[in-house]
Amino acid sequence: MKFSCTKEQLVHAVNIVQKAVSNKPQMPILSGIYLNAENNMIELQATDYELGIICKIEANVEKAGAIVLSGRYFQDVVKKLPGETVEIVTNKEEHTMKITSNSAQFNLLSLPASEFPVLKPLNATTSFKIRDNIFRELIKKTVFACSADEARPIFTGCLLNVNNSDVVMAATNTHRLSVKKEYLDDFTGNVKIIIPSKILNELARIMVAEVPSDIRIDCAYGQISFTFDNVYIISRLIEGQFPDYERVIPPDFATNITLNTDEFSAAVERVSLISRVSDYNIIRLTFKENSVVISSNNPDIGKAEESVPAIIEGNDLDISFNAKYVTDILKNIDSEKIYFSLNTPLSPASIKPCDDETYTYIITPVRTTA
Amino acid sequence: MKFSCTKEQLVHAVNIVQKAVSNKPQMPILSGIYLNAENNMIELQATDYELGIICKIEANVEKAGAIVLSGRYFQDVVKKLPGETVEIVTNKEEHTMKITSNSAQFNLLSLPASEFPVLKPLNATTSFKIRDNIFRELIKKTVFACSADEARPIFTGCLLNVNNSDVVMAATNTHRLSVKKEYLDDFTGNVKIIIPSKILNELARIMVAEVPSDIRIDCAYGQISFTFDNVYIISRLIEGQFPDYERVIPPDFATNITLNTDEFSAAVERVSLISRVSDYNIIRLTFKENSVVISSNNPDIGKAEESVPAIIEGNDLDISFNAKYVTDILKNIDSEKIYFSLNTPLSPASIKPCDDETYTYIITPVRTTA
Repeated sequence: MKFSCTKEQLVHAVNIVQKAVSNKPQMPILSGIYLNAENNMIELQATDYELGIICKIEANVEKAGAIVLSGRYFQDVVKKLPGETVEIVTNKEEHTMKITSNSAQFNLLSLPASEFPVLKPLNATTSFKIRDNIFRELIKKTVFACSADEARPIFTGCLLNVNNSDVVMAATNTHRLSVKKEYLDDFTGNVKIIIPSKILNELARIMVAEVPSDIRIDCAYGQISFTFDNVYIISRLIEGQFPDYERVIPPDFATNITLNTDEFSAAVERVSLISRVSDYNIIRLTFKENSVVISSNNPDIGKAEESVPAIIEGNDLDISFNAKYVTDILKNIDSEKIYFSLNTPLSPASIKPCDDETYTYIITPVRTTA
Repeated sequence: MKFSCTKEQLVHAVNIVQKAVSNKPQMPILSGIYLNAENNMIELQATDYELGIICKIEANVEKAGAIVLSGRYFQDVVKKLPGETVEIVTNKEEHTMKITSNSAQFNLLSLPASEFPVLKPLNATTSFKIRDNIFRELIKKTVFACSADEARPIFTGCLLNVNNSDVVMAATNTHRLSVKKEYLDDFTGNVKIIIPSKILNELARIMVAEVPSDIRIDCAYGQISFTFDNVYIISRLIEGQFPDYERVIPPDFATNITLNTDEFSAAVERVSLISRVSDYNIIRLTFKENSVVISSNNPDIGKAEESVPAIIEGNDLDISFNAKYVTDILKNIDSEKIYFSLNTPLSPASIKPCDDETYTYIITPVRTTA
């Protein structure tokens, strides 16, 4: 194998595929990045068997071939190369790959390409396209609500439900639920899958094109792939039945409160300085006389209390929540004002932006003895 | 105790004294910050018995008094307060301190001030003044050369040697030595003390005044204090005899090499990507034919090699070093060029800036089998 390419493109490609290199690989070969040079293209691949990433870049290929390099050292070395171009030549006898850039020269030990589980394109049963900015918005507004508890896999992923032109993404850890709706331009069909949150987080990080472009999504039994620019990402899906989240959303509320997002958010952050050190991180909200008093009490530290103006339509109410579940949603709301809607101190409440009917967040209160 | 002050000044003072609050306090009271209000000043104090810091700020004191608060929560709370001013009132019966700022109110549990080991000014045997920018330069150019090995305390500190108008700071871990000289305006006397590197690092972080100003240094048996602006820092000294470092500095060298600092530094950093994962982090320097070839070889990863132009006066030479000891000094040299001076592959070498006779760095080579 012998090729040359720009350092910038190689660094970009290595940074992308590196996300699929496991820190604790099941087999040594999975700690590596696979390189394949042919037809004036270099293909880089990495996989941990859950997530696989392919990234292609242009190169001047003098001799085709494939090789596997330790991902960690390859990334470190490529990033620090001094020149604008990089020349790479393999030495089969010494099992090394020579990387030359200006006056710097590295000979990295290589692994045989034949041992690498080369990624294959999915044999898709359903395919559709979605704008990357829309897909990123679906992820960003829901993925934080997933559970981290691997014992219940369904809650570690987001439901993606496509029904003709309607796309819904939903996530829940059973204590809170986040649902975001968007629309597709042209697709007729039905998809209902659960995508691991880890993959969605990586996708949101990789999809940073300045100009909105299309992502092609292919689904097959148990797998999904995402294709955009020069990147191909393949992932397993989570098996099982996502809970019927629509049943959790209360049809109406007895009390509807309007709050300024930033004011309420800053006050909740301050009061939770006192609550967050305890396991339950409980804050109490007292809605009364056109204000909400946010308070917390930690016997080891002290008390905090802050009042914020509120427009209250309905009954006064005293209710307690896990502060993190409140701050998480407030960080994801861009509107100046929010609606906080409640029924009783023990029934699910809703927090949503004033100007966006497509975003729903349901939060279960905490029962307190006070 | 009752007072009000600006949030900005209070945050500044808490951030400074916080550095003396131990994470693993010997006694619960040492996890706290002591506050004393009188004469329209607030004094904040913290100590871990090795390092003590006092910071004073102006305040509108309505009722004098003293109290101790948990350092960690006090810092978190003060930083996030919403208003420009802060009002603080203690409640003796409840053992709490009420902090009010705009609509936010915190009641933090307090500890009795009587239990706090209040810091006392040193009874100095010698005192002198030094410009903070000069003192910071002395620290920055030497403290990195200290050892972290607490088993040999002398090498965990910097020697400060004042002899009339000459000030020298020196540090060594026995494998390398860094010495920086400066001059005092008016002082006649002699001081020879070893200051813990931890305190010097904290000092360098705290002394960030935009306009150069004087620091007053007071020494007493076993202790040192630093006074500047509204800050008073007191520390123990390290006891023992600092090695006679001047004997380590070779009087002359057989080979003198001139190198471009940035070029050499970048090449050493790249080559050490390969060496740094092994325990010894060894790079080899081959000075020959107006260039230096920097190389390293790690049987588990591969080889790296890079050549940089050099002006060599004297014999060609092959010599190996711990790469960290080379990069550490290069980071602290501001000059465009350095002198690298050598005798034999096994005798100490010198690296110094071309235009600064007051800075000396001696490094012991590594014996290699190759």
